[in-house]
Amino acid sequence: MNINMIHTAAERLKGHARRTPLLSSPFLDDIAGRRVWIKPECLQHTGSFKYRGGYSAISALSEEKRKSGVLAFSSGNHAQGIALAARQHGIPAAIIMPSDAPDIKIENTKALGAEVIGYDRDHEDRDEIGKNLARERGMRLIKPYDEPEVIAGQGTTGLEIAEQAKKLGIEKADVIICCGGGGLTSGIALALAEHAPKMSAFPAEPEGFDDVARSLEIGHHVNNKLSSGSICDAIVTPTPGQLTFPILKHHCTKGFAVNEKEVLKAMALAFLRLKLVIEPGGAVALATALFRPEEISSDNVIVVASGGNVDHDIFTRALNTLRCA
Amino acid sequence: MNINMIHTAAERLKGHARRTPLLSSPFLDDIAGRRVWIKPECLQHTGSFKYRGGYSAISALSEEKRKSGVLAFSSGNHAQGIALAARQHGIPAAIIMPSDAPDIKIENTKALGAEVIGYDRDHEDRDEIGKNLARERGMRLIKPYDEPEVIAGQGTTGLEIAEQAKKLGIEKADVIICCGGGGLTSGIALALAEHAPKMSAFPAEPEGFDDVARSLEIGHHVNNKLSSGSICDAIVTPTPGQLTFPILKHHCTKGFAVNEKEVLKAMALAFLRLKLVIEPGGAVALATALFRPEEISSDNVIVVASGGNVDHDIFTRALNTLRCA
Repeated sequence: MNINMIHTAAERLKGHARRTPLLSSPFLDDIAGRRVWIKPECLQHTGSFKYRGGYSAISALSEEKRKSGVLAFSSGNHAQGIALAARQHGIPAAIIMPSDAPDIKIENTKALGAEVIGYDRDHEDRDEIGKNLARERGMRLIKPYDEPEVIAGQGTTGLEIAEQAKKLGIEKADVIICCGGGGLTSGIALALAEHAPKMSAFPAEPEGFDDVARSLEIGHHVNNKLSSGSICDAIVTPTPGQLTFPILKHHCTKGFAVNEKEVLKAMALAFLRLKLVIEPGGAVALATALFRPEEISSDNVIVVASGGNVDHDIFTRALNTLRCA
Repeated sequence: MNINMIHTAAERLKGHARRTPLLSSPFLDDIAGRRVWIKPECLQHTGSFKYRGGYSAISALSEEKRKSGVLAFSSGNHAQGIALAARQHGIPAAIIMPSDAPDIKIENTKALGAEVIGYDRDHEDRDEIGKNLARERGMRLIKPYDEPEVIAGQGTTGLEIAEQAKKLGIEKADVIICCGGGGLTSGIALALAEHAPKMSAFPAEPEGFDDVARSLEIGHHVNNKLSSGSICDAIVTPTPGQLTFPILKHHCTKGFAVNEKEVLKAMALAFLRLKLVIEPGGAVALATALFRPEEISSDNVIVVASGGNVDHDIFTRALNTLRCA
């Protein structure tokens, strides 16, 4: 895993992935007490950064390895990214998805042409199911984060952040990234280390599911007690990735964790001030910037809003937090 | 009013206005039965395209004329655009606004440093109030659409559409624009006539407030029967502008009108498929593309989502249309 892989992923993604803008609002700056910049990957194809990694991994395969299709396991966003990228490459995709994933994610994945295979998040081992299907169908398994070309694809977000920040005259910033298995965070950390060495990358997670923050603190992998039950379903993983954690340990001095109320308020403020739809798991970084100012040291904070695939019920709950404001 | 004014406005706006992307979704293409591209001016500073016109007009004034400040009358979006642009130029701004404008627009305008002066939309003449205040305070009145430098600023949206479409290989398209007084529509029409001559510009309005469409049909100014009562408050004007209508007549063969239900559904689909927050008045063009396919002839449609300043109550109403889907 190195910076050249991110550069070559960026070449393959050219003309496919969207270059999302870097947004800001004086109202959010006021709340945070510093400049806050938002990288809205919710505007990426399929509504999350996962398209970058999916397209990167599929486009990196040889035609021979690619033709019998790809297989993925995902709480939804990786699924959609893989499904669209597979369709664009003209190959089949099968997606192993927890049965309790939001309806919209299951429907969207099917609508993008993929086959969806459900499993029970609490009682079945998704790795085992994936391996069996890969063997039976000859499909190539593309893991959501422990896959170098996926990390390279997500890292292209970091290349864009470095370029866009430079244009704005920002050299030093804390870059906060919504973190599940760590693919996006480690990819961005690698890109920044090379192209914006005065910036620091930090993972953000929901409280109770802050395996990455706690693993960073202790220095080795620890697990979350619960495997489900967070509104931030997109970024709930049991423990940091095998490939991603060494990168995170090298580049990230700590991680942040925010609570559900802060997440919903951040979503409401993104609606109000940025005109963006952000899903709970995509709002933890913005929530950190807005509501944990004392834990941040830099004058400039760049947060990645990693996805926008949220059910209207949960979004309405977020909007309701504006009523008491 | 000519294309050079739009070019020089674009120069002045460089580094200030956001270059909004051109988005799309295969799900929206399926509904429309053709390719649909969305220019999300809801992501512009202050949440609407009005910032372009406001900044253009203020930056075009001589320092001498500018220093005593600017005055604007607006249902809200022009107000915010003027307020921010005035603050960025370090000059005072006073905004004359209907008392029934959404709270968020009044609050935001004040928060951006402007003074807000309320008036009764049904019983008071806003032009009269504006003239009196201009005389008393020596402030320069910047009209929301009947002002050449405002039209020029809005026209920069058209320059971007022409450039972005060219990059995507789109030469021929129907460009549908949410239309109130016609500043945005006429500015875009002028820009396209020069830079994308195979594209056609069309205004879109809410049913019952389609003064521009009916004026185009008859060939002279007609008025709306009602002056308020539409959820599309941002684009309700009594009749086409004096400066804008001749331009519209020259470039637009017809206008579209959509109903409230179509507007709310378009907002919900923008939430679901684009992760964008669009206000009712900013959704009439998208609603036309999605729900009036038989009235459109081109294989490619580009719609401007002109603003995103919507109260959470109305947005929740829009989301509720997804429950019956």
